[in-house]
Amino acid sequence: MIKAFRDISLVLYALFAAIALATGILPAQAQEPLPSWNDTPAKTRIMEFVTATLAEGSEGYVPPENRIAVFDNDGTLWTEQPYYFQLAFMLDRVTTLAPQHPDWSTREPFKSILEGDLRNIAKDGEKGIVELAMETHAGMTTDQFNAIVTDWFEKARHPKTSRRFDEMTYQPMRELLDYLRANGFKTYIVSGGGVEFMRPITEKAYGIPPEQVIGSTILTDYALVGDVPVLRRLPKIDFINDGPGKPSGINKFIGRRPVFVAGNSDGDYEMMRWVTAAKGPGFAMLVHHTDAEREYAYDRKSEFGRLDKALNEAERRNWLIVDMKRDWAKIHRWQ
Amino acid sequence: MIKAFRDISLVLYALFAAIALATGILPAQAQEPLPSWNDTPAKTRIMEFVTATLAEGSEGYVPPENRIAVFDNDGTLWTEQPYYFQLAFMLDRVTTLAPQHPDWSTREPFKSILEGDLRNIAKDGEKGIVELAMETHAGMTTDQFNAIVTDWFEKARHPKTSRRFDEMTYQPMRELLDYLRANGFKTYIVSGGGVEFMRPITEKAYGIPPEQVIGSTILTDYALVGDVPVLRRLPKIDFINDGPGKPSGINKFIGRRPVFVAGNSDGDYEMMRWVTAAKGPGFAMLVHHTDAEREYAYDRKSEFGRLDKALNEAERRNWLIVDMKRDWAKIHRWQ
Repeated sequence: MIKAFRDISLVLYALFAAIALATGILPAQAQEPLPSWNDTPAKTRIMEFVTATLAEGSEGYVPPENRIAVFDNDGTLWTEQPYYFQLAFMLDRVTTLAPQHPDWSTREPFKSILEGDLRNIAKDGEKGIVELAMETHAGMTTDQFNAIVTDWFEKARHPKTSRRFDEMTYQPMRELLDYLRANGFKTYIVSGGGVEFMRPITEKAYGIPPEQVIGSTILTDYALVGDVPVLRRLPKIDFINDGPGKPSGINKFIGRRPVFVAGNSDGDYEMMRWVTAAKGPGFAMLVHHTDAEREYAYDRKSEFGRLDKALNEAERRNWLIVDMKRDWAKIHRWQ
Repeated sequence: MIKAFRDISLVLYALFAAIALATGILPAQAQEPLPSWNDTPAKTRIMEFVTATLAEGSEGYVPPENRIAVFDNDGTLWTEQPYYFQLAFMLDRVTTLAPQHPDWSTREPFKSILEGDLRNIAKDGEKGIVELAMETHAGMTTDQFNAIVTDWFEKARHPKTSRRFDEMTYQPMRELLDYLRANGFKTYIVSGGGVEFMRPITEKAYGIPPEQVIGSTILTDYALVGDVPVLRRLPKIDFINDGPGKPSGINKFIGRRPVFVAGNSDGDYEMMRWVTAAKGPGFAMLVHHTDAEREYAYDRKSEFGRLDKALNEAERRNWLIVDMKRDWAKIHRWQ
C-alpha cells in the first residue's frame, strides 16, 4: 500500500519536473559559463580542471570539502593601476586628516602626498604602502572604520575611468568566481591589502562574504568606552599578507590547502608554489596585463603588481597565463 | 498557455509534496530539537531566541548573513577537567620528545612534567599553557603537526573516563550546534586553545570545518625543503585568543559581530560583552559546571575554566546560565 503511494508520487514527481523545466519554473541548463572569456585554450584549461574535480573516482577528483579557491585581489579581481585602490583611499584620508596633523606639512611621506607628489610612495613596495595606510587608519573603532570605508567607496572615483572603484572589477573573473561556486568551490580573497578595507565591499563586488576575505591586518584591542565594549584599531601592524605571508595567511584562516589559485604578480608567487605543490590536483593561473587599450599593459617593470619571477617560471610549473587582451572578450562589466 | 502549464505543475507539485510527506519520501517535521535538554526555562529561552531570528519584520529578526554563532571549546563544547585536553597532548609530547632534550630533566616546567608532578603547570593560567604547548610543538611543518595531532587523538584516552578525548564532547551542545545550523546559523569555535590542535577533529566532533575554528596561533613561515614549499611552525606566539583577545580574534577572522555566543569561563567574558553590546538581537549563555556526578562541578576556584566575574554579572546582563545538572538530561553521548 505504502509502496504504491510511493510509486505514484515518484511518477508525479517526474511529471512535475518535466513540466516545470518546460515552463521555466525550474532553471534548465544554466547558461554557458564564462561568457566574457574568449574561446581560447585558457578557458578550456580552466573548465577541464573544474570538470575533473567533479568526477568521482578520476585522478582530478576533489572532494567537496577541499574545493577551496583563493584569489589575489589587486590586479587579479580588479584594477591596480595607476595605483592600488587602497592607496587612493589612503591619499584621501591624508587630505581629510591633515588639519588635525599640522606636522604632516613638513613630514614625509605626508608632505609629498599633500603636495600632490606621488612619485616616491611606491618605493618601499606593498609593505611600505600597507604600513602607511595603517598609520593613517588607526585610532578609531572597527565599526567607525567600516563606516569610513563604506562612505569612501560611495564617493571616490577612479582617476582614469571616473567609475566607482568597486566597479573596476574584471567581469571574466567575476564569472570565474560564479562558475567555481556553482561547482561547489568556496571562494576566498587572499590579498596584500588591508582586510578591513576590502570587507565592506567584497560581498557586493564578488559575492564573497567578509569571513572569506584574508588580508593584511593591524592589531586591535578590546576597550570599554563608557560601559560599551568596542574594538580599537591600533597603529601597529599585525600581519602582512603578501608574498611568503600568503601561504601562512591561508593556513591560519582556512586550515586547508586550496586547490585553485589565481594571482597576477610576484606577490602571489609563494602562494602559487604552495598550492601547486600539493600531492593531488592543483591549478594556478596568472592574470597577465596585456591590454593597454581596454585596461593597462605592464609586468616586469611595474611599481604596482610587478610580475617577473612568476612569469619566468609559469610554463615550467604548468601555471596558466591568462592574456587579458587575447583571452578576455570584455574586461569590465560596463565596457 | 504557458500560465496554464505553470498552474498545472504547481497543482501537481502540491500533490506530490503531500503524497511524499505521507509516504515518508520527504522528511516530515524534523524531530524535536535539543532532545538531550530537559524541559527547563534554559531550553525555552534558547528556542525563543532562535525562533525570533527567523521572523522577518519582528524585533528579534536576524538576516541570514548575520546568523553567526560562536562557541568557546574547553568547558563549553567538551570537558576541560582534570586539565585542558591540549595540556594532556603537551604532556605526552614532552615525554615523547624528552630523549632529544636532555636539558629538560633539570629545566622547568619540563622537569616537573617528566617527574609526573602537574601541580604547578596551571599557575600562569591559559596563557602559560599555550606558550608551553607552542614551545613543545614547533619545529615541524604544518602537515607534520596535523599528522601528530591526528595520531594523538587516535591513541590518547581521558584519565577519568578512558574515552577518546574527542568523545568527551557535550551531547546537548552538539545538538545546539545542529539546531542553530538547521536555522541558518554559521557556527564557529572561538577558543583559547591552539587552532591547529583543534582543526583535525572539529569536523568529526562538531560538524565544524577547519575554516570555522578560531584559536591561538603560533607564527609560521614559508620555506623550501629541497624544492618543495612547506610552512614551518616557529616557536613564537602569534596571537593568544583568550579573554579580551577573543573579540579581536572574531573580528579578524569573521569580520562581523556574532549574534549568539556560548562560553563557560571568565576567558569568555569580553567576547560575551562584545556580542551582547550590539544594537540588534544578541544572545549569550554560560555553561555552569554543576554536576560532579556526571561530569565535574567547579566555578570560582577552578584552575581550569575559572568562572567568577562572568557569573557575577550574568543576571544583570541577561546572560543565560545553563546549569548542567538541572538543564541537561544527558552530558555525553555515551552516558
